[in-house]
Order: sequence, then C-alpha cells, then structure tokens
Amino acid sequence: MTQQQYEECIRACLECMEACNDCFDACLKEDHVQMMAECIRLDRECADLCAFAAKAMQTNSPFAKQICKLCADICEACGNECKKHDHDHCQKCAESCFRCAEMCRKMAA
Amino acid sequence: MTQQQYEECIRACLECMEACNDCFDACLKEDHVQMMAECIRLDRECADLCAFAAKAMQTNSPFAKQICKLCADICEACGNECKKHDHDHCQKCAESCFRCAEMCRKMAA
Amino acid sequence: MTQQQYEECIRACLECMEACNDCFDACLKEDHVQMMAECIRLDRECADLCAFAAKAMQTNSPFAKQICKLCADICEACGNECKKHDHDHCQKCAESCFRCAEMCRKMAA
Amino acid sequence: MTQQQYEECIRACLECMEACNDCFDACLKEDHVQMMAECIRLDRECADLCAFAAKAMQTNSPFAKQICKLCADICEACGNECKKHDHDHCQKCAESCFRCAEMCRKMAA
Repeated sequence: MTQQQYEECIRACLECMEACNDCFDACLKEDHVQMMAECIRLDRECADLCAFAAKAMQTNSPFAKQICKLCADICEACGNECKKHDHDHCQKCAESCFRCAEMCRKMAA
Repeated sequence: MTQQQYEECIRACLECMEACNDCFDACLKEDHVQMMAECIRLDRECADLCAFAAKAMQTNSPFAKQICKLCADICEACGNECKKHDHDHCQKCAESCFRCAEMCRKMAA
Repeated sequence: MTQQQYEECIRACLECMEACNDCFDACLKEDHVQMMAECIRLDRECADLCAFAAKAMQTNSPFAKQICKLCADICEACGNECKKHDHDHCQKCAESCFRCAEMCRKMAA
Repeated sequence: MTQQQYEECIRACLECMEACNDCFDACLKEDHVQMMAECIRLDRECADLCAFAAKAMQTNSPFAKQICKLCADICEACGNECKKHDHDHCQKCAESCFRCAEMCRKMAA
C-alpha cells in the first residue's frame, strides 16, 4: 500500500461518513420514515465506523487493516440498503459507500 | 465534587447511553416510526455524547465540566422528547436522561 | 448466546473502556512516559473500540459479532502490553482487557 | 451562517481531527515523550471532539452551535499546547487547531 493509497482511503472514509450522516438526517425528514428504518440504522453505524477507521489510519494503528476490513463490510451493507431507495441522498450515499468499501478492501489486502 | 459523586456521574452517563441506544433500536422497530423521528435523532446524539462525557471523566479531562454541562442540556432535550411517547423504552429512556442531566449539572457546577 | 451472556459482554466492554481510560490518564502522569508509549496508544484504541462494541450490542447491530471479534483482538493486544508494566493501573487494565477479550470471543462465536 | 460557512466549518473540523491524530501518533514516537504528555492528551480529546462536531453539523443537530462552541475552546487549548513545541507535527497541528477554533466560533455565534 503506497502513501497515496493510504491517503485516498482516509479521504474515502471521511466522504462516506459525510454521505451517511447527510442521509441519516434526510431519512428522518422523509414522508415515509417507516421505509427508511433500516437505512437510518445502517447510516449511523456506517458513519461512525468510517470515522473510527479514519482515526485508525491517521494514528497508524496496528489494527488499521482489520478495522478497514470491517469497515468495508459495513459500507457494503449500507450501500446495498441505500441503493434500494430513489431519494437523491440515498443514491449519493450508496455511491460513497461502495467507493469506500472498495478503498477499504485494498487497504486491508 | 467528591470522588463518589464523580463516579456516580460516570455511572449515570453509561446508563443513559444504554437507555438511549436501546430506545434508538426499539424506535426503529415501532409500527409508527414517523412519530419517533425526533426521538431517534436525539437518542443517537445523547447516547454518543454520554459516551464522550464518560470518557472525559475517566481520563480526567480538563474539559470534563464543560462537556458535562453540554451533556446535561442534550439529556434534558432527549428526556423531554422521550417522555411524550408511551412506549416502555421511551419512558425508561426519559428517566435515565433526566437522572443523567441532574448528575451532569452537579458535576459541571 | 443467551440474553444474560449478551448483557455480561456489554458490562465487560464498559469496564474495559473505564480501565483503559484510567490507564491512559495514569500513564501520561508517570515519571517514565517513554516506556508507556505503546500502552498509551493501545489504551486509547481499546477504550474507544470497547465503547463502539457496547453501542453495537445495545442497538442490536447486525455487525455486533464481527465488531466483538475485532474488539477481542485489540483487548488482547492491549492486555499483553499492559501486563508488562508493574503499575497498578496497568495490571488492573490488563485484567479487564483479558476478561473483555474472553467475553467478546464468546459473543463472536 | 451561510451554507458555505457551514461547509467550511465541517472541513476545518475534519482537517483538525487529522492534524491532531497525526500529532498524537508522532508525539508517541518522539525521543522525549515526557515533554509531550499534555500534547498527547489534548490531541486525543481535540481529534475526538472535532469528529463529534463534524457529525453534529452533518446531521443538522439542534446542538451544533453549542458543540462547536465547546470545540473552539478545546481547539484553542490544544493549539496553545502544540505551539510550544518545535516539531513540525506540533506546529502544523497548532495551525489547524487555531483555524478550526476560529471557524467554530463563527459557527457558534
């Protein structure tokens, strides 16, 4: 893993954190919150683990790879849930989640 | 503030964190998620700030008092929202929030 | 996993978070901080992941098992580092870490 | 507060989080960890509160202003400690802290 890939992975985590937090807020304001329940749950967990993964990489944690592997799994689950919904915030979130999952898998490899 | 009061405040924060996280999960499973949107939002924020306040006290942070003051405000807002709802998890959460708010105010004094 | 084991694991995580945060603070006040550098690093990461794991269990996260598996690995690393040092806070922290690692492995099984 | 100022404040918090986490890691690797103890303590707290403040803004928290006010105080304390030390990572961190404190104060106004 080059320094550039490392920095790209931190960037992807912070962007995914932002997209998930935006989506969490927007889902709570939708007319049909009921349908968004699983999305809200995963948005919270994904945003928080992305922040945790960024911190691990920024501090050169000996567990950075393992944390990124887990982050990739949660990002993928969150992306799969988000892409089911037509709202812009969900589609945008799914995109950030899949990109972050891909970067985290490279990091964990 | 005595050592005993300090420890009681940490305990109150950790109990409030638990009650808020339980309530967050239970609200997402309710038949009328719509009505619970504000509760879900505040449960997340309150749980996370309670964890932050516990960490601040456990590490003897120079900002423990200021963090506890903010924690008291968020606990009170979360408690006021939760007590509007009849669900057991909301009533239980409101009780933990008000108790934590009281302990945090003493800590911040 | 019974409900009782689940609650015991949350308890073990919160106790380990406290022991690690206490140890973090105490290490920074030691005469020979140099020797404690790795302990300080792991205390932070272990405390924060224990809080994360407790949150995951409290919210019935679909990733609770995977998070607990990772938590067990970090607790074990932190316990192994702490037990090298004679300070009471390190010995106490090692004990909490090993107990938490054990509970998290059962949870993840 | 315009949308642009809001986004600049989130950006400042995430940059400050990164500078503090970099500094935390670098301080633990210095020859004289002893001298860096207060810096290490504040780096952790500042990084974690910056992440918390970014989350609050990203989710449109009703407490975003209060959290940013507290964040400004901690950033200022961390910046004042860091600027005492000649290491590049400390000087860079102080700069990020002061910039973040300034943005957070505007946000809280």
